[in-house]
Amino acid sequence: MNISTCPFPKIFPSQLEKDDLFFMQHAYNEAINAWNTDEVPVGAVIRFEDQIIATAHNQTRSQKDPTAHAEMIAITIAAKHIGDWRLNECQLYVTKEPCPMCAGATIMSRMRIVHYSFNDPKMGGLGGATSLHDLEMSNHKPTITKGIMEEESKILVQAFFQSQRK
Amino acid sequence: MNISTCPFPKIFPSQLEKDDLFFMQHAYNEAINAWNTDEVPVGAVIRFEDQIIATAHNQTRSQKDPTAHAEMIAITIAAKHIGDWRLNECQLYVTKEPCPMCAGATIMSRMRIVHYSFNDPKMGGLGGATSLHDLEMSNHKPTITKGIMEEESKILVQAFFQSQRK
Repeated sequence: MNISTCPFPKIFPSQLEKDDLFFMQHAYNEAINAWNTDEVPVGAVIRFEDQIIATAHNQTRSQKDPTAHAEMIAITIAAKHIGDWRLNECQLYVTKEPCPMCAGATIMSRMRIVHYSFNDPKMGGLGGATSLHDLEMSNHKPTITKGIMEEESKILVQAFFQSQRK
Repeated sequence: MNISTCPFPKIFPSQLEKDDLFFMQHAYNEAINAWNTDEVPVGAVIRFEDQIIATAHNQTRSQKDPTAHAEMIAITIAAKHIGDWRLNECQLYVTKEPCPMCAGATIMSRMRIVHYSFNDPKMGGLGGATSLHDLEMSNHKPTITKGIMEEESKILVQAFFQSQRK
């Protein structure tokens, strides 16, 4: 197997029901795009009202940029779209619990809700290893949900690292 | 007084002694550049050996991008310069304690040492409000120093916010 080809299929959800699962499925498809470019398969989508205004996947290796995580790129795209650095009416869907950098970016951008698939007890910034959404003196505390597509998103990352070790 | 003109002068340090103060003075000059473009005056410099390989200041307002903090931009520039996302031989000099996003970026980039001028008990990510450099299971724990140009850097930010309130 070529390590740069993801063995998991994309999901094509119905456009008729735009629920949280719909948006997370799009984030999952972005994670598959990441794998197909030899990046750790994490994907992110930003929702404003019922529209997707930004999609992105990890690009740290291809860009040689440690800040090029899916969430960071999506936040920058969304802010350009909105025309304001404040994303207080937006929701982020991401297939893995954000690291401290990305968790911090959800606070700096005043993201209303962050949905993530599976948690990261080692480096998660929104409840896993630390809780940046709940700093005592912070002006902004985003709402957090977890567990949408938890298994699929976790299996994707685990399978990627297994394929890399081969 | 025009709020977009910084009343504090830049510092032009001797090139003969490249100590920590030398690098922080360059970060301070970047903070003045920020003020002069109507941005919160925080500046950052990245050092590799005895060279400055990246300088940047806050650009969140002008770029309408919540991720465009001085430290983030400098890290991206430095990684392009080094040709690798790992900055484990680099040192960051920044005039204010990094927020959680930027503190997280110093960990993701494996920055060797972070020097900051004054601490931020409200939103600082490296000891002020939380300690991201010391997460229990983290693979990377940068060394932190604080206090270089502490007063000057703090006065600059305070004076900027005072000028904004007028």
